[in-house]
Amino acid sequence: MGDRVDGRSLRYAHRRTELLHAVTEHVLAEGLADLTLRRVAAAIGVSHATLVHHFATRDQLITEIVDDVLTRVLMPSAEGIAHGFDLRATWAWLQTPEGSQATRLYLSITGLALYGDPPYADALRRSQQRRLAALSAGLRLVGCPDDECDAVATSVLARVRGLAADLLLTGDRARLDAAFEDFAREAEARRATWRSA
Amino acid sequence: MGDRVDGRSLRYAHRRTELLHAVTEHVLAEGLADLTLRRVAAAIGVSHATLVHHFATRDQLITEIVDDVLTRVLMPSAEGIAHGFDLRATWAWLQTPEGSQATRLYLSITGLALYGDPPYADALRRSQQRRLAALSAGLRLVGCPDDECDAVATSVLARVRGLAADLLLTGDRARLDAAFEDFAREAEARRATWRSA
Repeated sequence: MGDRVDGRSLRYAHRRTELLHAVTEHVLAEGLADLTLRRVAAAIGVSHATLVHHFATRDQLITEIVDDVLTRVLMPSAEGIAHGFDLRATWAWLQTPEGSQATRLYLSITGLALYGDPPYADALRRSQQRRLAALSAGLRLVGCPDDECDAVATSVLARVRGLAADLLLTGDRARLDAAFEDFAREAEARRATWRSA
Repeated sequence: MGDRVDGRSLRYAHRRTELLHAVTEHVLAEGLADLTLRRVAAAIGVSHATLVHHFATRDQLITEIVDDVLTRVLMPSAEGIAHGFDLRATWAWLQTPEGSQATRLYLSITGLALYGDPPYADALRRSQQRRLAALSAGLRLVGCPDDECDAVATSVLARVRGLAADLLLTGDRARLDAAFEDFAREAEARRATWRSA
């Protein structure tokens, strides 16, 4: 509240960011099942009171974790797709330990959101809208007709999501790489029609 | 064990199927979070001992629920895609109450499976393999070249999964219908290349 900043509030702000980072790392590794402020506090080695001081409630903390994960780790993939439609770089990133952990958490948040847990559902909807808008704008830049950008962006995100889920579930990399190559070729063929339009 | 069937075992087999059906309906409506035999028994109005008698453990029950849901409600969609590549019928089915409930549960099982809960992960892998095999065989029937069937089947399942997840999360039917139409047109164009091959 207000514009005054003193040393103490700066220190707290810094501490808050640090805590959120630690919680996010914990959740990326362990998932969100049975998440409570008390369990999280124990896992990252701070007191329950410290977490309550900075995040107030479990729902507030979850909202911030989800926003943090989705922004920090999933936006770059949308940007990767948009800047030069670089699907192959996105697919490679999804198979790094960081990408794979983030995707797993994302799919797990989806599962929780679908039975109506509000902090998950709201954060996920916001993230979906942001990625869609970023990708749609990127597609427009590379020549996608205005009235097709949202549909193509929606398709690309759906397809990447589905392939990444299949890969995480089955670990069948040869089949998924082949399906992904098929996708990348279709996307390039489509992009070629925009260039010539 | 063995081939002898008497009235008593038939009655039990019937009762078991009835119980599994009741549990599956409960789970389709409420989800799988915090599932225990005791809570399920209370929800469907039988004793804990009855569930233990028929399903032994929580993991055994979960395995059967997941197999039941995935076979009963998701295989028809794979068959729908395969027989005549009828994507539009599949998309319409996914938007019925039954299809939407089944998809929601499927995506929630995916979330749980990814953090290593074995009954979910194993059942889901089996189901993914079965749907993939069914769809791949169907694609072969409608002219897909042998060496492309698995990749195309993988892509189709991924895309349907991703679009259905987006629809459930955002409820943005106009955008998803447009993305789906785009998908159906691409699929038809691809199928046309098989016919002429």
